[in-house]
Amino acid sequence: MVNTYADDSMALHTDFYELNMIYTHWKKGNHQKNAVFEVYYRSNPFGMGYTIFAGLERVIDYILNVKFSESDIEYLREEKEFPEEFLDFLKEWRFKGTVRSFKEGEVAFANEPIIQVEGPIVDCQLIETAVLNIVNFQTLIATKASQVKSAAGDDPVLEFGARRAQEFDAALWGSRATYIGGCDSTSNTRASKVFGIPASGTHAHALVQAYRDEYQAFKAYAETHKDCVFLVDTYHTIDSGVPNAIKVADEMGDKINFLGVRLDSGDLSYLSKRVRQQLDEAGYPDAKIFVSNDLNAETILNLKMQGAKIDVWGVGTKMITAFDQPALGAVYKIVSVEGKDEDMHHTLKLTANAAKISTPGKKQVWRVRSYNNKKPEGDYITLHDEQPNAEDSLFMFHPQYTYINKTVENFYARPLLEHIIVEGALVYDLPQLDEIKEYAETSLSEQWAEHKRLLNPEPYPVDLSQKLYDAKVETIKLFKKIAKSTSSEENAIF
Amino acid sequence: MVNTYADDSMALHTDFYELNMIYTHWKKGNHQKNAVFEVYYRSNPFGMGYTIFAGLERVIDYILNVKFSESDIEYLREEKEFPEEFLDFLKEWRFKGTVRSFKEGEVAFANEPIIQVEGPIVDCQLIETAVLNIVNFQTLIATKASQVKSAAGDDPVLEFGARRAQEFDAALWGSRATYIGGCDSTSNTRASKVFGIPASGTHAHALVQAYRDEYQAFKAYAETHKDCVFLVDTYHTIDSGVPNAIKVADEMGDKINFLGVRLDSGDLSYLSKRVRQQLDEAGYPDAKIFVSNDLNAETILNLKMQGAKIDVWGVGTKMITAFDQPALGAVYKIVSVEGKDEDMHHTLKLTANAAKISTPGKKQVWRVRSYNNKKPEGDYITLHDEQPNAEDSLFMFHPQYTYINKTVENFYARPLLEHIIVEGALVYDLPQLDEIKEYAETSLSEQWAEHKRLLNPEPYPVDLSQKLYDAKVETIKLFKKIAKSTSSEENAIF
Repeated sequence: MVNTYADDSMALHTDFYELNMIYTHWKKGNHQKNAVFEVYYRSNPFGMGYTIFAGLERVIDYILNVKFSESDIEYLREEKEFPEEFLDFLKEWRFKGTVRSFKEGEVAFANEPIIQVEGPIVDCQLIETAVLNIVNFQTLIATKASQVKSAAGDDPVLEFGARRAQEFDAALWGSRATYIGGCDSTSNTRASKVFGIPASGTHAHALVQAYRDEYQAFKAYAETHKDCVFLVDTYHTIDSGVPNAIKVADEMGDKINFLGVRLDSGDLSYLSKRVRQQLDEAGYPDAKIFVSNDLNAETILNLKMQGAKIDVWGVGTKMITAFDQPALGAVYKIVSVEGKDEDMHHTLKLTANAAKISTPGKKQVWRVRSYNNKKPEGDYITLHDEQPNAEDSLFMFHPQYTYINKTVENFYARPLLEHIIVEGALVYDLPQLDEIKEYAETSLSEQWAEHKRLLNPEPYPVDLSQKLYDAKVETIKLFKKIAKSTSSEENAIF
Repeated sequence: MVNTYADDSMALHTDFYELNMIYTHWKKGNHQKNAVFEVYYRSNPFGMGYTIFAGLERVIDYILNVKFSESDIEYLREEKEFPEEFLDFLKEWRFKGTVRSFKEGEVAFANEPIIQVEGPIVDCQLIETAVLNIVNFQTLIATKASQVKSAAGDDPVLEFGARRAQEFDAALWGSRATYIGGCDSTSNTRASKVFGIPASGTHAHALVQAYRDEYQAFKAYAETHKDCVFLVDTYHTIDSGVPNAIKVADEMGDKINFLGVRLDSGDLSYLSKRVRQQLDEAGYPDAKIFVSNDLNAETILNLKMQGAKIDVWGVGTKMITAFDQPALGAVYKIVSVEGKDEDMHHTLKLTANAAKISTPGKKQVWRVRSYNNKKPEGDYITLHDEQPNAEDSLFMFHPQYTYINKTVENFYARPLLEHIIVEGALVYDLPQLDEIKEYAETSLSEQWAEHKRLLNPEPYPVDLSQKLYDAKVETIKLFKKIAKSTSSEENAIF
């Protein structure tokens, strides 16, 4: 069946185990205990050296509006048999926590908190699934678009992926993410309406096939549109498509603004060179060659390497699905929790894999910029109340290979986690989409080219402060001891 | 910005070029001309031999409800400057075409029409993007779930992917698709509410971390829940997790129904064997071992091969995103169009790649079953008005390698494209989700095991009738001639 709930809400857009845990906390009287959770991902996707953080605005919208509807409560009563008192609690529940986050469009790196959620443990827990669902996808796609745009250089990149996106929301929000990441327009008309992204597109093979005669089809299109781009590969690009496009352009003259032609099949390198020659010889040196057909950053680089005469790139399936790695794998981990002593306690998850042990404690992330070379020295993660700018120098060391280190002087450290929501209330001025796009460009332009290389980029340092590193080592020791000791009330902090 | 349109509609969830073509057809007075479009994909995904068709119900819901809202019209007026008369036409527009489709859950194959849309050319054109967006994703995910379930055999498979899905709709509709494809439950509570899929999930590492003491955390959970599955790998699965789970199970006895434990990290083969031993020795031979951690069909097969003692599989990221091939690539192609002579004319797109030339004409697809061996002989695609069951024998031949052929006698041919919507009205009784799931199981069970093998399956025959094959060859000849001739009014059929 399709969704027939008039009061459908996003409160149940959560893994069921969250509700089970929330019930335990509520039943045990721990639901007002504070906790801190952080969102981070473990490695940069696509072999790249960074990501473009995206999805914040939708996260904010979700958090400010999420509440249980009547039908949600009814489902939990009938299907899950939670007691009425708990359902009463859920009915009244609204998010009352505090959210700090990177700005949307900020360049981000693996293993640093990009969003931090602090507040009643049940508030933090309920929003986990939806927050990850949004941030995982939008950050992934903005990053993929940045990769594609990086390959295309100054050429425009058009987002063409709606029909291959993973359902409607992915088409819509994916379009927004690609725009943030560097695309110039979208084929998705709804995304254009909703977000103000320029919509582009002219006609498909179906138009030519409806007329059967290609010239008549182009002519009909030209008589009803300005700024014409003709799709020339329905029958034969060189013998038929381009000559018919030129014939219509000649006939219509100033009545249309002949922008160019689009190739959607065949060898795009060979064809684009032949077509360029045809257009030039016909007196249309300014007509552009648009291409599409399963493009990605690698095919764009290869086509450019071969001297293909391509001006505009339409990229669909492989960008909107992040085809070569369709999941970012960001996680949402508890790092600090309020005990029965009302103090906040560090926490982490142990694992045999050293690099996968989470870093405990409520943090701040600082982008350290040297005044000497104007470029970032790396990101520096501290406990939330450290003030690196009060120091004369920073000792920055690799969080696993601690013998890889440097001392940075003459620097400014910019805090990246900003207050977005404080105790349930929005305190942040949401930027316009074009500002976010511009912010992404600026944030990226500040980086060393070496970290932005598409293949084998130099890893960007993401280091821990000495205090945070020490706290991590201490917490690991403590937890190993607890894991081996006989369980007891004394170990329990709740 | 987030979507702030109260009257947001799906009419603009379409590539902009569709609207440009619709405008041309309307302006030229061709908008009531009939056309036939068909949805098909070119190769089965994941190296598999089939797909499970899914998404029909959402396609129907979209088609029956799609119309332009005030804000859609306003966007087209202000941003795209379409004339008022055209906007008036769009305001009144509703889909008046006819849709035939495979049943949801039907086993489908490459290069056969799974949905056919017939009606005014503008109606057909407008819905292209959304129909593909839905069918591409849901069919892909149902097929991926079928692959995973096939590897898991009789073991239950739980869908755990919401947080890694490509945005909200993918989490919701993906969950439904995995259920059709063979999964037993979902972690997505909203999907459970909306579709009636069983919701599963117990607790996360965060619960153990909140208490710090694992035993106290399990005990708190057990005191507030029945049917307990404890997540045992927060600190140390063997030394701490399982002993604490057993301790709680012993203490709570009949008060809880101790279902088992879940492993989410480490070597699942080794750990599951050790844990099985621990549970058996403690007197819990019926306690199940649940696992999760980036599983897919291949890891499940390998773990089974090593004799891992795993009872229940939680599969997330790699199923909900179809990680190894996140797009099906289904297309929507015009196959027949009404000319100015009011006759319907075959159409196709030429290309240098023989296998990629589309097959013209309005079709029917028949699943040919031999009475001799009770198994399908293949699918047989005919022009829509052919009646293969009136024949004594069918000559079935490969659509490219025509020397690969066979004559089938004593058969029954079942038509797979059924009427769903006729001239805009629903004529189909929508099955319940559990019926669709059951239908998928039945449809799959009827197939030869050889076509269902996960690695290098034997290709299933998808053949063309002689009449359809002849029509294709004729149309190719005609179109090659048209492409080479001087364009003229005579060639134009519109």
